Amino acid sequence: MSKKAVVLVNVGTPDSTKVSDVAKYLHEFLGDGRVIDLPWLSRKLLVNFIIVPFRSPKSSKLYKKVWDEKGSPLLYLTENLADKLRQELGETYDVHIGMRYQNPSLEKLIKSNKFQKYSEVIFIPLFPQYASSTTGTVIELIYKSLANRDVIPKINVISQFYDHPEFINCFADNISKFNVNEYDFVIFTYHGLPLSHINRVHPEILESSCNCQNEFPEHGQYCYKACCFETTRLLLKKTGIAPEKSITSFQSRLTNKWLKPFSDEVIIEYAKQGKKRGLIVAPSFTTDCLETIVELGIDYDELFQSHGGEKLDMVPSLNDNDLFVQFLKKLVIGDKVI
Amino acid sequence: MSKKAVVLVNVGTPDSTKVSDVAKYLHEFLGDGRVIDLPWLSRKLLVNFIIVPFRSPKSSKLYKKVWDEKGSPLLYLTENLADKLRQELGETYDVHIGMRYQNPSLEKLIKSNKFQKYSEVIFIPLFPQYASSTTGTVIELIYKSLANRDVIPKINVISQFYDHPEFINCFADNISKFNVNEYDFVIFTYHGLPLSHINRVHPEILESSCNCQNEFPEHGQYCYKACCFETTRLLLKKTGIAPEKSITSFQSRLTNKWLKPFSDEVIIEYAKQGKKRGLIVAPSFTTDCLETIVELGIDYDELFQSHGGEKLDMVPSLNDNDLFVQFLKKLVIGDKVI
Repeated sequence: MSKKAVVLVNVGTPDSTKVSDVAKYLHEFLGDGRVIDLPWLSRKLLVNFIIVPFRSPKSSKLYKKVWDEKGSPLLYLTENLADKLRQELGETYDVHIGMRYQNPSLEKLIKSNKFQKYSEVIFIPLFPQYASSTTGTVIELIYKSLANRDVIPKINVISQFYDHPEFINCFADNISKFNVNEYDFVIFTYHGLPLSHINRVHPEILESSCNCQNEFPEHGQYCYKACCFETTRLLLKKTGIAPEKSITSFQSRLTNKWLKPFSDEVIIEYAKQGKKRGLIVAPSFTTDCLETIVELGIDYDELFQSHGGEKLDMVPSLNDNDLFVQFLKKLVIGDKVI
Repeated sequence: MSKKAVVLVNVGTPDSTKVSDVAKYLHEFLGDGRVIDLPWLSRKLLVNFIIVPFRSPKSSKLYKKVWDEKGSPLLYLTENLADKLRQELGETYDVHIGMRYQNPSLEKLIKSNKFQKYSEVIFIPLFPQYASSTTGTVIELIYKSLANRDVIPKINVISQFYDHPEFINCFADNISKFNVNEYDFVIFTYHGLPLSHINRVHPEILESSCNCQNEFPEHGQYCYKACCFETTRLLLKKTGIAPEKSITSFQSRLTNKWLKPFSDEVIIEYAKQGKKRGLIVAPSFTTDCLETIVELGIDYDELFQSHGGEKLDMVPSLNDNDLFVQFLKKLVIGDKVI
């Protein structure tokens, strides 16, 4: 039997914290039409002449906060995960990693012609919930890089896995390392998205008129918002955390027309209500990175404290946890689960 | 559980035997860069001004031979297959058919936005062996039609199935309906391909220096030639037909630089050797069509007889055989088999 390949795909990181490397990263990331969905020329002008020049020095400072002696956590944590999965899968699988933006480049990996020798290539974008700007852009890159090839190898792209019981188990296990009773509230925070992205998934149903906060709707299959709320419901059920003690919110917004409630506003509100200790969980990230380590772990804690709270603790992401490795192994070798 | 979709994909057929409809079909088919691999402009000139005008009236006559009261066999046989598979799979699957060229159009089906509601769409190009000009062009169309979508649904494309034991079983069963002892020889004929196509699959190994006629090589996974010879070996083993009584050859060539030996030359050679009765099997087609019904079933028989042979019988293709339906059902609902 010939070998199969597994490709763990993550969003990406600058090569270093230097402003020029951060600018390169932002340029590629924000140049993606699925990330900033403006017409091509407007996006190019905005990204090249406004966002990248002004944001790169600021972002570079943020990356310096997240960088440690091993480098960029997003990168080395993904590498560690790949190493462990490689050990688990044994010799019949080759495990690669590929970043959507910058290095090690998913695009270069696909174009290297390596995949032709495998009987199947299984791509796992490490994003639990499908969104056009994460899993969608990865699949677009894969499809476009392979479409014109003489030999288009057999591939399998895992679209999402937010509702897989073993994935839920991984996050519940991480949460269980904290004594939930000691906290006044638990925030399930997900990376935000423009409302226009949500409305494009189900144009027949406006985001604002949908009931997916309360139950998973039939049209919600590829709707990031519906899948985030469902992730929270599944995690509440698994961990036994009382729904009334928890909230689902969205962070990292760029404008007011992004998914609500906004996590920072929720945190301020809780502090104003006199709540003292909070726990924050981020189940749209499987790997800790700038957004979790700095935004959630440092900035939100400071925000909470500056409004009268005592401490906001962050549950780490799955990173290279053994349970997560076992889950990925099952995705790869198990029956079709998605 | 939400529904899954199955799409049976076949090559296509003109809408009718009218010269204008045949021209439309040839125009789309030959306009595909994977079918005629000339630079865009040369192909356009050749196809629009030379091949289509001169070949359409001739092809129209051929299609009149193959058309029957139910219409184009390729179409209604694929529809019958889909009907039977629909019955077998029950309500959790929707079964569609899509033609790569003309109608019912695979491209229109994909672009209709129907697939977003399914948890998975399983495409089965009905070509047992992968080739750039058959399965490759289907996958290219699927990838390109889906790549830019906001929601890219979870898909699974079956790349090839020539070596699946149950597929081999289907063809062996069809062969078993003939008394092989009554025949002087058995030809396993496959649709030909330009040698350049083969060499592009494994540029490091020239088609002419490869030993895949005798054993399956490591680099042969996506090589049409290697997979055709392997199909014959598997069929010989399954049916017990003596290898020395059989030959593997290739039909429908356009130039001399196509896969050899050429089936028509083999047939003439057998007739000249004084052989009287032959059996012909075409395991690169799962559905009977112009190439099997007319080229193999009528023309080759006439050719054989005109050189002194008595009768060349053709084993029908799988069409909507119940065994084939069962095999497809297994591909769809079974464990990952490919």
